[in-house]
Amino acid sequence: MTFPTKEFPNDLEIARRSKLRPLPEVAGTMGIGPHLLEPYGDAVAKVKLEAIEELSDRPRAKYVVVSAITPTPLGEGKTTTTVGLGQAFSHLGKTATVAVRQPAMGPTFGIKGGAAGGGYSQVVPMEMLNLHLTGDTHAVTSAHNLLSAMIDNHVHQNDDFFHVDRHSITWRRVLDVNDRALRNIIVGLGPRTDGIPRETGFDITAASEVMAILALSTSLRDLRERLGRIVIGNTVDGEPITAEDLKAAGAMAVMLKEAIKPNLMQTLENTPVLVHAGPFGNIATGNSSIVADRIGIRGGDYLITEAGFGADMGAERFFNIKCRYSGLKADAAVLVATVRALKAHSGRFEVVAGRPLPPELLEENPDDVFAGADNLRKQIENIRLHGVSPVVAINAFPTDHDSEHAAIREIAEETGARVAVANHFSEGGAGATDLAEAVAEASEEPTEFGFLYPEEASLREKIETIATKVYGADGVAYDMKASQQLDSYEKNGFGNLPVCMAKTHLSISSDPTLLGAPKGWTLPVREVRASVGAGFIYPLCGEMRTMPGLSATPAATRIDIDENGEIVGLS
Amino acid sequence: MTFPTKEFPNDLEIARRSKLRPLPEVAGTMGIGPHLLEPYGDAVAKVKLEAIEELSDRPRAKYVVVSAITPTPLGEGKTTTTVGLGQAFSHLGKTATVAVRQPAMGPTFGIKGGAAGGGYSQVVPMEMLNLHLTGDTHAVTSAHNLLSAMIDNHVHQNDDFFHVDRHSITWRRVLDVNDRALRNIIVGLGPRTDGIPRETGFDITAASEVMAILALSTSLRDLRERLGRIVIGNTVDGEPITAEDLKAAGAMAVMLKEAIKPNLMQTLENTPVLVHAGPFGNIATGNSSIVADRIGIRGGDYLITEAGFGADMGAERFFNIKCRYSGLKADAAVLVATVRALKAHSGRFEVVAGRPLPPELLEENPDDVFAGADNLRKQIENIRLHGVSPVVAINAFPTDHDSEHAAIREIAEETGARVAVANHFSEGGAGATDLAEAVAEASEEPTEFGFLYPEEASLREKIETIATKVYGADGVAYDMKASQQLDSYEKNGFGNLPVCMAKTHLSISSDPTLLGAPKGWTLPVREVRASVGAGFIYPLCGEMRTMPGLSATPAATRIDIDENGEIVGLS
Repeated sequence: MTFPTKEFPNDLEIARRSKLRPLPEVAGTMGIGPHLLEPYGDAVAKVKLEAIEELSDRPRAKYVVVSAITPTPLGEGKTTTTVGLGQAFSHLGKTATVAVRQPAMGPTFGIKGGAAGGGYSQVVPMEMLNLHLTGDTHAVTSAHNLLSAMIDNHVHQNDDFFHVDRHSITWRRVLDVNDRALRNIIVGLGPRTDGIPRETGFDITAASEVMAILALSTSLRDLRERLGRIVIGNTVDGEPITAEDLKAAGAMAVMLKEAIKPNLMQTLENTPVLVHAGPFGNIATGNSSIVADRIGIRGGDYLITEAGFGADMGAERFFNIKCRYSGLKADAAVLVATVRALKAHSGRFEVVAGRPLPPELLEENPDDVFAGADNLRKQIENIRLHGVSPVVAINAFPTDHDSEHAAIREIAEETGARVAVANHFSEGGAGATDLAEAVAEASEEPTEFGFLYPEEASLREKIETIATKVYGADGVAYDMKASQQLDSYEKNGFGNLPVCMAKTHLSISSDPTLLGAPKGWTLPVREVRASVGAGFIYPLCGEMRTMPGLSATPAATRIDIDENGEIVGLS
Repeated sequence: MTFPTKEFPNDLEIARRSKLRPLPEVAGTMGIGPHLLEPYGDAVAKVKLEAIEELSDRPRAKYVVVSAITPTPLGEGKTTTTVGLGQAFSHLGKTATVAVRQPAMGPTFGIKGGAAGGGYSQVVPMEMLNLHLTGDTHAVTSAHNLLSAMIDNHVHQNDDFFHVDRHSITWRRVLDVNDRALRNIIVGLGPRTDGIPRETGFDITAASEVMAILALSTSLRDLRERLGRIVIGNTVDGEPITAEDLKAAGAMAVMLKEAIKPNLMQTLENTPVLVHAGPFGNIATGNSSIVADRIGIRGGDYLITEAGFGADMGAERFFNIKCRYSGLKADAAVLVATVRALKAHSGRFEVVAGRPLPPELLEENPDDVFAGADNLRKQIENIRLHGVSPVVAINAFPTDHDSEHAAIREIAEETGARVAVANHFSEGGAGATDLAEAVAEASEEPTEFGFLYPEEASLREKIETIATKVYGADGVAYDMKASQQLDSYEKNGFGNLPVCMAKTHLSISSDPTLLGAPKGWTLPVREVRASVGAGFIYPLCGEMRTMPGLSATPAATRIDIDENGEIVGLS
């Protein structure tokens, strides 16, 4: 996220000027002693999982999830707001910990540039966050692909312990790169010694079930067990085959032994940040890890955790999947709203990723904001469905007008939600103290956090509950294939798992072109897949890209090392 | 390497009992201050490249390369001897630094188990060395595959700046996993949006030219330039296309910015160990990095660096490629010899990887040792060809007999080479002091280190020099394809590069079944490839596997995490 003004320094420049606080001191503010840290260079440390037990008698922080209205393809600054809010609490004499996902590296070299927040609300050093960090994503890639190799090896070696139905294999391979040519491939060509030919493909590592497992495991032991439960396909007799059956799960856990430890970094204002796991937001939970939050929940007065995409997506999964597995209860939810996104929801403008905003959208016009209000109202409702108090954060842009902020305030207050303008991008934490105060108030409200559905409900009941209550659909239409898959999952004993809807993030509906809060539509479920190890079933409501491509001029072409060995072009 | 006795603890047990010295102290013995270290946990630290400049006024260590006679498929304990020799010097009141390659992770989960030395001569913690370490190999994977994606993207986007001849593309993809099904694949299947179909494949990351570049670069700047020189194929007009042409080299360098820093670890006896880069021993140099040696050469009295496979392979490349680019001159060379390998060179036994040795081979029989002596004699000569003093290290096994050690001693001394029995596996450094003394003497001898060929020689002259002088071939026979490729490389200006012969490591000849020192044969060159970025041309003298497969029961099936979160099965 970079401001469209010339005077404002870019993200990398701001980040480079910042003064890092020694990490043991940052950890100290969370009650984490140096014996629980494993430094990776000066600016990042892994936190040992023993911290969960050691910190358990410290007071529990208020647990705040940051979500958003339905974003434009440009994004609405959710990470920036998460960081800014974390920074703001220190201006109120309170302590806060921020928890975010590790960004995928592929898109950094594709279209996106960095993903560490922006302006004066960033996680630093941004180049570490945006590159390998401590190698967790690489460990996921390795563990995932070891299982892939063991599957094809099992087929190749003609193991007679059980016979894999080759056409049933759903386990693909992964790499953290934007590479469309790997989406659909044939492996095993060549002579007999080079394996058995078979159609398959690569996903980006963020889309790996192993990444989702890393995010949802509560301990190393739990990680090991979840890995064993991964289903890769079935036998010729139709029985599910697990990673445990292939004797791969132990080695996969060994590869992930370091990756299960969260990474401690800091914001530009030295607020502690736990960066851990980066599961995809469309086919997986899009939330950072449970172990990070289990540590952060004892780290101070507030734990601010980010959930991917709009409240219908990341926040719904946060409540119904992540909180279900972690046992943690949310105290408040922030909904990031922007003038530009609400105007876009009016349907009067076309916003396209990688292109400048239409100039008309930037003109002062509160009516356009009101015209897009339904989306904000519905997402506020989506928070309240779970018994949590919403706070609307108006993420201010220099092109905004006061009348437009007032419009958002009016919409939010009509629903009874708290609302605050936040200037953390240009001012850092000091610009978001109103927001922090509103969050503090909301989190003191007596709430009754609850799941949207019980785990005993059938998979169809779960899907229909989310579709009608969260998305506002009239109902659900299952394709034949999806229906058969649901029956098969129920039969195999996976019916008690929560569901993770794989749906576009650009609309509350399943149609990315429908803005606002669409009504009078039916949710199509084309296919249903299972991440049994991670612990969810994911219905596909439209086509989901699991391997991005590169543009005609990828960001990589602008990234380099200068004469002083410094990175250029990474923001 | 594990002893076949029940009483002797296994490698992982010995390693776990060892007491690590704080790394800043280990670094201190090399003259490396804490400001030059970037800790990665407690047991590994990266060394900043500024160390090269800062240490430059310290005295230059004696530079000792550890090579071997032609090994059996079981390996002859070269890494163990390298580590043991390094440890031994402290028993003589001298300081030494050890430099080794980072092992590939794929084979660790395949057939091989660990690769950190063995017994009481190990690099610790062995589980870090054998797994991700600090992620350098993963960074190589990422950088390599970014270029792959940018190539296919260029083809897909129909860039009209230059037209890639799709069939000329030699740049494949890489992963650090043993996965035969990836050897030959078709990418780009599916709809128009998913790229252009094309045959290609994956190699193991160790075989990546990027790994060879990491090993041969002398600085970050040099790394950046070498990456730019990578040739990935040619235009439809036959002009070479480089990574620079594709604007990929800058981003690749950014991905490798941390990986270019060597990793400091220690032996069981706290000898400093620089672990850095792991280029394949058959199609690449099989030597650890130049930057590690540039630091280690100022680290104490001796720098012990390992070269892969026998002296005809790793040592020849060490002298003619690595030393040519680094400017460092070797003072002595150790040739690891074992009773079992010399007996195997008699041709009287069959030694197969993964199977126990034939019992007859273990019986006392110095005649069998004498019968295999030609191999040792030729490898001693191969060291002397470069003006370096050889020292034969008899790596003792518990199944050896004194008469057999005496036989090796007799063979070596007849050639005028120094020789010592080394018991470092069972006794640590104290068991290798005779070897260390012999190495110390050899390295004091006035020598005239020299390359085997000048860079101005033609590629054919270089190939023929190595074939006749080092391998003992009568001459070289070029396939038509190889001949055309050589002409084309000379024409494109790559004729001044050194050559890296891609040949079996199981024979001095190109036929793995020919033992001893084969005579009366001609070296076939089937094909010639170019690693222009790394800086060598590699003629293929037989089929080279660049992607290993898994066995019917891979090591991964025995590796797991126990109830205490400890790794089991990794030795």
